[in-house]
Amino acid sequence: MPTGPPPPELETLLRGPNPCVVATVRPDGELHTAATWYEWTGSQTVLLNMDASRRRLGHMRANPRVAVTVLDADSWYAHVSLIGRVSDLRPDPDLADIDRIAKRYTGREYRDRERDSWTAEVRVLRWHGWSNARPLEAKPRPGPSS
Amino acid sequence: MPTGPPPPELETLLRGPNPCVVATVRPDGELHTAATWYEWTGSQTVLLNMDASRRRLGHMRANPRVAVTVLDADSWYAHVSLIGRVSDLRPDPDLADIDRIAKRYTGREYRDRERDSWTAEVRVLRWHGWSNARPLEAKPRPGPSS
Repeated sequence: MPTGPPPPELETLLRGPNPCVVATVRPDGELHTAATWYEWTGSQTVLLNMDASRRRLGHMRANPRVAVTVLDADSWYAHVSLIGRVSDLRPDPDLADIDRIAKRYTGREYRDRERDSWTAEVRVLRWHGWSNARPLEAKPRPGPSS
Repeated sequence: MPTGPPPPELETLLRGPNPCVVATVRPDGELHTAATWYEWTGSQTVLLNMDASRRRLGHMRANPRVAVTVLDADSWYAHVSLIGRVSDLRPDPDLADIDRIAKRYTGREYRDRERDSWTAEVRVLRWHGWSNARPLEAKPRPGPSS
């Protein structure tokens, strides 16, 4: 699986308000998946935001391994999957993160102003993606002379 | 998380040709997610089909833990996640399984007639789902007098 930056067509997919599924590991080793909003911040980093009651928040505290798959909302035959680590897990007390993410998807602030909001910053280690029925490769890294 | 049968609205979602993401565990403990077709056969069982070259086939051989999330193709704010175990991993030499699954999604047989096709049967242990911005509960089991 590539470890370099994803190619432009996958970056475009990641920047859109697309459906996403996140996988975490429960303390007993069981897998857990859930649909989620996300924000690709570039620089190989994805933000996920959760209410404090979400089970995956506890999973991430105990085990930072995370994988996410983002599907193209228009045609889910284009998709990209990211494997990474939770590099930071922080409260979002003024709802700045969830409001920004909600606006990506709905155009509006998050409706529940009492949310106990938490943000996970996920550092991407590897990715794999498909588009137009073919696997996608990493974009070339700049050469030493460029 | 409920362990009983999902309620009718989730069964309807599971029976449709909806987008799905499957999570498996790599032998080194890393998570892996990928978009996939699936078939809900009822009786708490999901079929997944893969080409022999897919990494997740090896993951399932080494560790039968699987989680899948199915999103409603019309509005992914309805979704159901299933946690289960690979209960059978078998070749699909005459492409019967992949053809049936491909017809669900595309209306046609699978295009690659040389596919080295494998089917994973996943027995569902637990599930959780959302629809209309609320978590869904298990449908009541029949009582002892019914």
